[in-house]
Amino acid sequence: MTDSADAPVLPQPAYPGGSVVPVVGMVGAGQLARMTARAAIGLGVGFRVLAGSVTESAAQVAAGTVVGDYRSLDDLRAFAAGCDVLTFDHEHVPGGHLAALERSGARTRPSAAALYFTQDKLAMRQRLAGLGVGCPRFAAVADLAEVEEFAAGAWPVVLKAVSGGYDGRGVWVCASPAEAAQVLAHGIELIAEEYVAFDRELAVLAARSPQGQGAVYPVVETVQRDGICREVLAPAPGLAPGLAARAQELALRIAAELAVTGLLAVEMFETSRGLLVNELAMRPHNCGHWTIEGARTSQFEQHLRAVLDLPLGSPALAAPAAVMANVLGGGDPDVYDRYVHVMAADPAIRVHMYGKQPRPGRKIGHVTVTADRAHADPAELADRARRAASYLRWGREDGE
Amino acid sequence: MTDSADAPVLPQPAYPGGSVVPVVGMVGAGQLARMTARAAIGLGVGFRVLAGSVTESAAQVAAGTVVGDYRSLDDLRAFAAGCDVLTFDHEHVPGGHLAALERSGARTRPSAAALYFTQDKLAMRQRLAGLGVGCPRFAAVADLAEVEEFAAGAWPVVLKAVSGGYDGRGVWVCASPAEAAQVLAHGIELIAEEYVAFDRELAVLAARSPQGQGAVYPVVETVQRDGICREVLAPAPGLAPGLAARAQELALRIAAELAVTGLLAVEMFETSRGLLVNELAMRPHNCGHWTIEGARTSQFEQHLRAVLDLPLGSPALAAPAAVMANVLGGGDPDVYDRYVHVMAADPAIRVHMYGKQPRPGRKIGHVTVTADRAHADPAELADRARRAASYLRWGREDGE
Repeated sequence: MTDSADAPVLPQPAYPGGSVVPVVGMVGAGQLARMTARAAIGLGVGFRVLAGSVTESAAQVAAGTVVGDYRSLDDLRAFAAGCDVLTFDHEHVPGGHLAALERSGARTRPSAAALYFTQDKLAMRQRLAGLGVGCPRFAAVADLAEVEEFAAGAWPVVLKAVSGGYDGRGVWVCASPAEAAQVLAHGIELIAEEYVAFDRELAVLAARSPQGQGAVYPVVETVQRDGICREVLAPAPGLAPGLAARAQELALRIAAELAVTGLLAVEMFETSRGLLVNELAMRPHNCGHWTIEGARTSQFEQHLRAVLDLPLGSPALAAPAAVMANVLGGGDPDVYDRYVHVMAADPAIRVHMYGKQPRPGRKIGHVTVTADRAHADPAELADRARRAASYLRWGREDGE
Repeated sequence: MTDSADAPVLPQPAYPGGSVVPVVGMVGAGQLARMTARAAIGLGVGFRVLAGSVTESAAQVAAGTVVGDYRSLDDLRAFAAGCDVLTFDHEHVPGGHLAALERSGARTRPSAAALYFTQDKLAMRQRLAGLGVGCPRFAAVADLAEVEEFAAGAWPVVLKAVSGGYDGRGVWVCASPAEAAQVLAHGIELIAEEYVAFDRELAVLAARSPQGQGAVYPVVETVQRDGICREVLAPAPGLAPGLAARAQELALRIAAELAVTGLLAVEMFETSRGLLVNELAMRPHNCGHWTIEGARTSQFEQHLRAVLDLPLGSPALAAPAAVMANVLGGGDPDVYDRYVHVMAADPAIRVHMYGKQPRPGRKIGHVTVTADRAHADPAELADRARRAASYLRWGREDGE
């Protein structure tokens, strides 16, 4: 008996050159890579992840795990050598490394040029403004005088790190010049944005393949609390006539203009002034987890199909409605104990756990509820999802 | 940069004793284990496979692969030591080994006692007959005289290996005493069964957990050609009133009487004399692949929930109807080339490929089509599924 530790690293034969299937390499091994691994199994394509350690979410489950550092060009090059297409579960690979990989022939999808707009918020804002896309008012700011000039007396003002962030944060809502000064003290490059009084937050997920095929999922409503996405309602209930089509058209247009390959998530504010784009991501996104059960093609499979330049799958609803709720870590690490109660209480709920050590506030899983009938009450679906997610988070209500 | 080959073998911490999740070990690494691995990712439980080699279907994708021989008690013991629950993707583990594992404390689900009825067809027939379950007429036969006595002039007669088989086959339809003599010449233990003139073949998939909870999926129609399942229609179209409930009740009753833990697939003949049970399997089964998209809980997740003694998931339909078609290997090994055509022709079709080297007649994948509306025509769904499966099998029609 031998362990797989002795086995060849790449069970999928290399491609091209005598192989059956191409290998997609995903840089990053969080839950997005984990769920993409799941999709790759179904699709029957090769899949590898570049993980910081073997205990990361995707590394726990995917056979093709390579341990390495996404900040090291050598590690990226070695990883890319075993893959036909390179893609990403986060935006943190240095742009210079991406460009170097492309120069040496790696197929990075999305490209360095497209990813740049997720890595530099000022560039993103300027590009979108150039396209005439509705955005919050913004300006690059270097000091408190510029922030105060931007605010013109109307606080709060939102400060965002142009790239990266500080201590894990990249967005600060500043209620006063004093709070802005604290952020400025970090010494990082910042932009100021108006604080938008939105009605609600919407998101649209589009896919685009290298040959330019596009597909767009139904518009969803995202519910955030404390800056963390808590629930997603698909489709967004009660959209004004024409708004869904406008939002979808916008996402497809941005994907085409920015030459995105793979998924593009567009987070928007719905406001009295219309739709304003908040953030972009070019990867599977929390706003699309509901697609695993709720759409004909999950966002994870769609991303694989797009980066492989396969025809895109149908993004149509597979159920009249779906609600996803994130499971956040609570005080009690024994989440598995609570499976019994959640599953017994609602046999139709779909539980997805990420294999992550629960820490308060950390996304450790999600649950999805789909509607059985055409006119299901979104509030009722959301209640079911919220109840399960909160039970998985907090432990038994009797305190055991 | 280090490869995962240097990494610890068991990224999931052991359980019980300080761990987050239990580890299910599946003996066998074919497509059933591969699809179970996919379900384990979603469920967030640990999963390992015992594979004959790292190139097997499930071993290609699952992080927790151990290479060993299921016929070796030592290999089984070592594998079981790393798992909380042991389950199986085939029926070939020697019964004595299963009993030995149980004596040393392994939780085998299903148990050796239950699996016995899938490993000894004579015992299965006798047990079902004892329960009053409709079966084809049968008899143990030792020589040609006994086969001829059983036939009483009415040929063909079906001969089945009591256990195992000969040269990969276990069922022979004998049109004459001469053909029966050829089978008898293999010198293996046989039973004779009447050749049933059935209207069609049905199958029911039930799940049962150690604490006795049961769940049963809708009755499906299975279409076989040359002894290989080609299509599954879910639910079986046009069932006579009451028949579905009787078939489901039968499967639940057999599962309870045989103390099955995990899944039980019951293959049946629909005949003018009623339902006759053909075969039993105690694992995920080809007749249930449609559940990945077509049911609220896939058979693979249901099996994991059952063997872990978690509350079972809803077996309800997630779409009004679904049709699955198996993809068999054809002459051309470059199946991936044909993804483009299949996916472009039908963006809503679900493709599942198993990572198996295509060989003529070998099951290398399956496709599933689900209905969008309540009164979808099963024949139309079957056409779509069949077209995709046959395209994946045969290569481009222009012969390129």
